[in-house]
Amino acid sequence: MNSETVRFDFNNMLEHTLGRGKGLRVADIDGVRKRAHAIHGAIQEMRRAGTTPFYNVLFEEGELTQILEVADKIRQRWENLVVLGVGGSALGAKALHQALNHPLHNWLPAEEREGVRLFVADNIDAETFGNLLEYLEPSRTLFNVISRSGETAETLAQFLIVREHLSRALGPGRHKEHFLLTTDTEAGPLRRIAETEGYASLSLPGGVVGRYSVFSAVGLLPAAASGVDVRSLLAGARAMGDRCAVPEVWENPAYINGALHYLSQRKRGKGICVIMPYSDLLMGVAEWFCQLWAESLGKGRDLRGGRVQGAQCPVRALGITDQHSQLQLYVDGPDDKVIDFIRVERFSRPIAIPRSYQGSEDLAYLGGHGLSELLLAEGHATEAALTSNGRMNSTILLDRITPHTIGQLLFMFEIQTVFAAGLYRVNPFDQPGVEKGKRLTYGIMGRRGYEKERREIMLWQRKKKRRFIL
Amino acid sequence: MNSETVRFDFNNMLEHTLGRGKGLRVADIDGVRKRAHAIHGAIQEMRRAGTTPFYNVLFEEGELTQILEVADKIRQRWENLVVLGVGGSALGAKALHQALNHPLHNWLPAEEREGVRLFVADNIDAETFGNLLEYLEPSRTLFNVISRSGETAETLAQFLIVREHLSRALGPGRHKEHFLLTTDTEAGPLRRIAETEGYASLSLPGGVVGRYSVFSAVGLLPAAASGVDVRSLLAGARAMGDRCAVPEVWENPAYINGALHYLSQRKRGKGICVIMPYSDLLMGVAEWFCQLWAESLGKGRDLRGGRVQGAQCPVRALGITDQHSQLQLYVDGPDDKVIDFIRVERFSRPIAIPRSYQGSEDLAYLGGHGLSELLLAEGHATEAALTSNGRMNSTILLDRITPHTIGQLLFMFEIQTVFAAGLYRVNPFDQPGVEKGKRLTYGIMGRRGYEKERREIMLWQRKKKRRFIL
Repeated sequence: MNSETVRFDFNNMLEHTLGRGKGLRVADIDGVRKRAHAIHGAIQEMRRAGTTPFYNVLFEEGELTQILEVADKIRQRWENLVVLGVGGSALGAKALHQALNHPLHNWLPAEEREGVRLFVADNIDAETFGNLLEYLEPSRTLFNVISRSGETAETLAQFLIVREHLSRALGPGRHKEHFLLTTDTEAGPLRRIAETEGYASLSLPGGVVGRYSVFSAVGLLPAAASGVDVRSLLAGARAMGDRCAVPEVWENPAYINGALHYLSQRKRGKGICVIMPYSDLLMGVAEWFCQLWAESLGKGRDLRGGRVQGAQCPVRALGITDQHSQLQLYVDGPDDKVIDFIRVERFSRPIAIPRSYQGSEDLAYLGGHGLSELLLAEGHATEAALTSNGRMNSTILLDRITPHTIGQLLFMFEIQTVFAAGLYRVNPFDQPGVEKGKRLTYGIMGRRGYEKERREIMLWQRKKKRRFIL
Repeated sequence: MNSETVRFDFNNMLEHTLGRGKGLRVADIDGVRKRAHAIHGAIQEMRRAGTTPFYNVLFEEGELTQILEVADKIRQRWENLVVLGVGGSALGAKALHQALNHPLHNWLPAEEREGVRLFVADNIDAETFGNLLEYLEPSRTLFNVISRSGETAETLAQFLIVREHLSRALGPGRHKEHFLLTTDTEAGPLRRIAETEGYASLSLPGGVVGRYSVFSAVGLLPAAASGVDVRSLLAGARAMGDRCAVPEVWENPAYINGALHYLSQRKRGKGICVIMPYSDLLMGVAEWFCQLWAESLGKGRDLRGGRVQGAQCPVRALGITDQHSQLQLYVDGPDDKVIDFIRVERFSRPIAIPRSYQGSEDLAYLGGHGLSELLLAEGHATEAALTSNGRMNSTILLDRITPHTIGQLLFMFEIQTVFAAGLYRVNPFDQPGVEKGKRLTYGIMGRRGYEKERREIMLWQRKKKRRFIL
């Protein structure tokens, strides 16, 4: 295990540190060992059957070569890359950009950046989207439209708007070379448009669900174009894959973390998991995890169609910032949470706190320490404050933030989530709960065939009483 | 009630829309009417006694005049304003900046901005803080150090670092004019430094707790300096104050919202409240609310020292973005949440979706609508999808985002929180749960008098077993 290896410390999830009745017992975890072996077997079976393609994209050298070639050309030709996409089409690129590029990447002079400026437009708010389009010089901007199905209403609306915006700015017919469409190999309107009109495109292997697509063209192309070393990222993911190839829950970091979350909910009533990195750069990773976890496990039906309760609600928090916002609730409020810390041990910038005011006791203790030392001290103090109050918590440790450690971290979360789905007995790859909202939207927008949904919306509106609106 | 009046629609919190046993009954709300009258009386009593000064800062014309004068000078002299502060010293300024300035404010050419560029440094991550200092031209940058107690370790560390950074960049002694200290009128190290060394400073009225300080110099100075119309903001807050001056819970938007949250937890077991604006610009407001709510109500002891369970865990989500991330969990997962939508009815930028591809059914329905229409349609569809599945939700309606509506919204949340504290019987103005973590941090950092805490930290570390670290 070298210093780049991501570690996982789960002492504070267990009774031996938290006190009797407050954490899990070793026997609780032993109790899922057999099931873990069975789930491991089922996952291997799915891999062989090709139903979990997200495992395999890590090894597709041909795909990677193509992505890197396209990214190289983008870096040479364009100043700005705008991702038009939402959810799984956006969060991976955002996480990688925030973690691995300079915090002010987009605002640095061109010569100080290693790749294009990257913007991710994952909402359809007219204020932000309109102002972004106005801000970017059209002639220097490439739009990467990402939708696995090719049908995402918001992304299609953005595409239509940008298409006209570019035609107006650059002259008719000149817009086409400003687009790269990333979508299914065969199906959907975006693929149809790419084929019939000759837009540049990248293909997604069948079955890669959005939230598991960070290691495909969806996440890798924007990352590589903006300067992330994606080969090292993939090597990290593969290294974690190797560590998670064992069926024994006590030895597999992804499986034990999945089991701890499941058991903390089922045995100790923790309905909330807070993911709390002590690093600004990892908030995008936390956000990405929240989608992965919520959409994969937040199910009302198990694999056989029976009612289930679904998983913990993921919440993201930031150390030290949220110590001054949410920590009061986590320490003293309802004991219904587990806190998943992510701690980074080394920061690349050493900043010393000067020894000024050595005569003042309320200032002197700071001087001579590094700023990162203070950050780490607060992380340890918060961990101890929670633990001493019997609150379950665990810590993922990264020596430094590098493409290799981030690759490990993201892939660990993917395996953890699929494994937890096995424990919850739910399908981690579908999202039936959002279908109704989509159909109702079609109804309001007047799409043909959705007249019933249009009437249903009006029915709900009519049910409302005036006296309950202030 | 004019079009600028913020409205609150709570139909979908009640049984009559959700179905029997799924929402609150009218009788549930009637059941807290008497207590609401008593809490109202207690709040009025506290206002008279001066223990809730956040109510009164709205009316202090003298303070406001001073803040506006300082802000004017800042706008004339400086290009960048950096807030050094965290929690209540940061979140108000961030919320106002995001809601009311241009989404790309900091990156626009100077002539297109109405005020200084605003940066809020509310973490001590060496990567982000170090890079920010490197990026900003020292000679054009003012640092507003904000800490009510003047003792916040992270803010003091930032202050010491910036002080030396400026001395080095500008020559010894030249740093002083680059600081504005906002702190207590009399106590604490920052006040002492301001007085003895002659730093410019603003005073906080005694007793204004950080998370209730957005309408004091803490929130108003950065807002005014960056171009926000704070007079209109305060007028909005006062207008909401007038509407919330009635003791009757059925007529008071802040009280009914506080009561609905309390009752949804106590009567229907909802341990989570999700605040979900359909507007990018309001995510800062959501974040600000999460602190206000969590730190005010996340208490383990009531006013008499008895054990209590504390309030709901606040979570922020963004429409439409989180429809593609969290909505599956909200619709289908555990029924332990209430969703608080914030809907904006009108956007200042009309963006039309072009009528391209009218022959393709999967694209044609979008054409001819506005982008904001699609956003609103998705908001209504999400509301209906949740409601039809029996999930409790309510909606705060803003006609537009203006200083006046934002003033109303923020002040409504403040009153709602103080009122809810009355129902929970907890003190909304303290945060005893974070004290232990602060003392443990002092211990690790070697502050004199905290040797016991240092030993405690080592004890927790020693309790850890190697086999529970992978």
